[in-house]
Amino acid sequence: VTDVTAQTSDYTSNLLARRAGGAPAAWNNMGAKPRKMISFTYGLPDEPSFPSKELAEITNQVMSEQAAPILQYGYPRPLAEYLAGFIKKDQGLDITADNILITAGSGQAISLFCRLTLEPGDYVVVEAPTFLGAVKTFQNQDAQIAEAPMDDEGLIIEELDALLTQLKAEGKRVKFIYTIPTFQNPTGRTLGLERRKALIELAHRHEVFILEDDAYHGLLYQGEVPSWLWTLDPYGIVFHCGTLSKTLAPGMRLGWIGCARPELLVVINSLNDGGPTSSYSGYVAAKFAEQGLLAKHTRQLIDIYRRKRDRMLAGLERYMPDGSKWTEPQGGFFIWLELPEQVDTVKILGKAQEAGVNYLPGSACYASGKGRNCIRLAFSLVKLEEIEPGLRTLGEVISQALEG
Amino acid sequence: VTDVTAQTSDYTSNLLARRAGGAPAAWNNMGAKPRKMISFTYGLPDEPSFPSKELAEITNQVMSEQAAPILQYGYPRPLAEYLAGFIKKDQGLDITADNILITAGSGQAISLFCRLTLEPGDYVVVEAPTFLGAVKTFQNQDAQIAEAPMDDEGLIIEELDALLTQLKAEGKRVKFIYTIPTFQNPTGRTLGLERRKALIELAHRHEVFILEDDAYHGLLYQGEVPSWLWTLDPYGIVFHCGTLSKTLAPGMRLGWIGCARPELLVVINSLNDGGPTSSYSGYVAAKFAEQGLLAKHTRQLIDIYRRKRDRMLAGLERYMPDGSKWTEPQGGFFIWLELPEQVDTVKILGKAQEAGVNYLPGSACYASGKGRNCIRLAFSLVKLEEIEPGLRTLGEVISQALEG
Repeated sequence: VTDVTAQTSDYTSNLLARRAGGAPAAWNNMGAKPRKMISFTYGLPDEPSFPSKELAEITNQVMSEQAAPILQYGYPRPLAEYLAGFIKKDQGLDITADNILITAGSGQAISLFCRLTLEPGDYVVVEAPTFLGAVKTFQNQDAQIAEAPMDDEGLIIEELDALLTQLKAEGKRVKFIYTIPTFQNPTGRTLGLERRKALIELAHRHEVFILEDDAYHGLLYQGEVPSWLWTLDPYGIVFHCGTLSKTLAPGMRLGWIGCARPELLVVINSLNDGGPTSSYSGYVAAKFAEQGLLAKHTRQLIDIYRRKRDRMLAGLERYMPDGSKWTEPQGGFFIWLELPEQVDTVKILGKAQEAGVNYLPGSACYASGKGRNCIRLAFSLVKLEEIEPGLRTLGEVISQALEG
Repeated sequence: VTDVTAQTSDYTSNLLARRAGGAPAAWNNMGAKPRKMISFTYGLPDEPSFPSKELAEITNQVMSEQAAPILQYGYPRPLAEYLAGFIKKDQGLDITADNILITAGSGQAISLFCRLTLEPGDYVVVEAPTFLGAVKTFQNQDAQIAEAPMDDEGLIIEELDALLTQLKAEGKRVKFIYTIPTFQNPTGRTLGLERRKALIELAHRHEVFILEDDAYHGLLYQGEVPSWLWTLDPYGIVFHCGTLSKTLAPGMRLGWIGCARPELLVVINSLNDGGPTSSYSGYVAAKFAEQGLLAKHTRQLIDIYRRKRDRMLAGLERYMPDGSKWTEPQGGFFIWLELPEQVDTVKILGKAQEAGVNYLPGSACYASGKGRNCIRLAFSLVKLEEIEPGLRTLGEVISQALEG
């Protein structure tokens, strides 16, 4: 047999120097096992609740009903039709399946939107902090990043206006604002209705698009949330992406992008030389949703995640030192913890891991590396009974850092 | 409800001007139905043979055994492990699962390889004719295309040498040669062993990589085929992509790229901000293959496609006018038909369709638009009993064109 590991050439080595980075850590994981500890690190969904039995049954059903269109090259249009109907009901938007393009997760939706809009040197304005997986996608497309500040209610519109004005004065071309207005990653914050309206007016005035990421849609544990930016948009400048990764299963790789003009989705689709999503999972998910199982499953998830969130809030109250503050999200997967300025959450991460608890340092959520006294706490994957001991340990590590 | 079709703005219209084109026609099909006729157009697999029942059973099995890793964010490593074992046996290559990266079809593999290697203005050398879906991917990455001529045995090595030398002299940087050496799309030709060895030496001398696409692997109906370029490569310059779209089902969206150096696959994977493939289909396919069902199914497909190929060859012999010639592929999906010079297959396509038969004009397989007297005939999707009447009709349309 040929030993391929002996095969090298000088110019193959050059390839290794090409841009590293890229997708979120969870995607780069090609089978490696994480260390055993209580982890608040990743925004992965709760595992015991995956509807595996129902998915197997539905697969059996669609395979016996209409296997050929599902297994052939194609597009899972029934899922787009389900989503259009759902959105019509949920948001009052008068759309059809042509206003929706199904993608391989919302990650692919974001990537394709970039291919549609971005030219080298273009700026993307993001919330500070934000979801860094999206930022890496923007950077992979040679975009520059500008950060817009937030307060407890999300994006500060006046500051965003000043930023856009300043960038324009500097001759910099902003193509779009990337926002997660509801249960934001990483802060859990939700942008209020008045700010949403103001954001759309502002974007239109500056002639920039809005990419609205609503990854946690439906996972509402308390109160109400305003309509989508897409729903409120009278100008057709909002592109909206969603996913089934949080309410069904990430392994299905199903997301979507929607907008007012179907012909733009045709262009976006034609740019997808990475290939379309799996019809195998697309048709299964469509049938799962059509039969009411997605709505039922989402209600079960709300119960699970609400309990985890409440356990988190109680634990933070009990174990975090004076001078700490944290968000109280209405939904989603994340709580944002701000510690006293002198705590460096990058520095103490190793100690936390040694003590058996893991988290994402806040600076991993800023393109600029700010937020070193902050932590993103994901409560979605962690087991309910591990939350209290995990936060106790974290509190001890932080207290030691404050004393030391 | 809001009528989104009324939502437009001047600067959204500009987006429509952005590069159209992109993916192959079958991928762009967002649910539209083709006209009813006998079609030799698309290289889609035979539909009645899809193993839908077995896939449903296997899905049930993997869902009951280990649902969480399949439904969570992740990577279908068992499929990479199966493929590594298969390749070790089939090709004698001493590789592991780390030499394989599973992708969403080989289309994504090709796209990611481009992201690894291509910088704007780089040249890619392709066979003339070739698979235009790949060419569109190269062009989407701002590559220039150069065509290398073929004869009945595939790429002509001396001509390729001259082309590479000329491009270098003109200061043009060729990054890789894209080749489908076995049952080529669109010609069905297979490159012989000596030319394979010479191709590798030539590429190494010119310091260009080879992207070997073996989409039809295993679908051998007659004789034997040489080892892969990857297998014959002592320099580590061959990247090999494969797919389960022809031997299992395109709707599963499963392909792969392999190379000598695992660390390059880690870089390629990190460039995949379009998102990974579906674990849901990946784990199912792995189990399907591990249980021997893929090998068994491939044997059934060989019988089906061999009969279709033989029916094609008999029909061409009977119905094509004097001065025509065609390839006799050992395997794969395609026959390449060359008609007398004066026949314009683009011009007569409309007449053929009116008469009830469809095909891909040869010029759709050249980046340069050559081959107007040629036709690609796919015999994979067409029903066995439609082949003879389809070719009879095609022969009539061509004869009329020759007379007219």
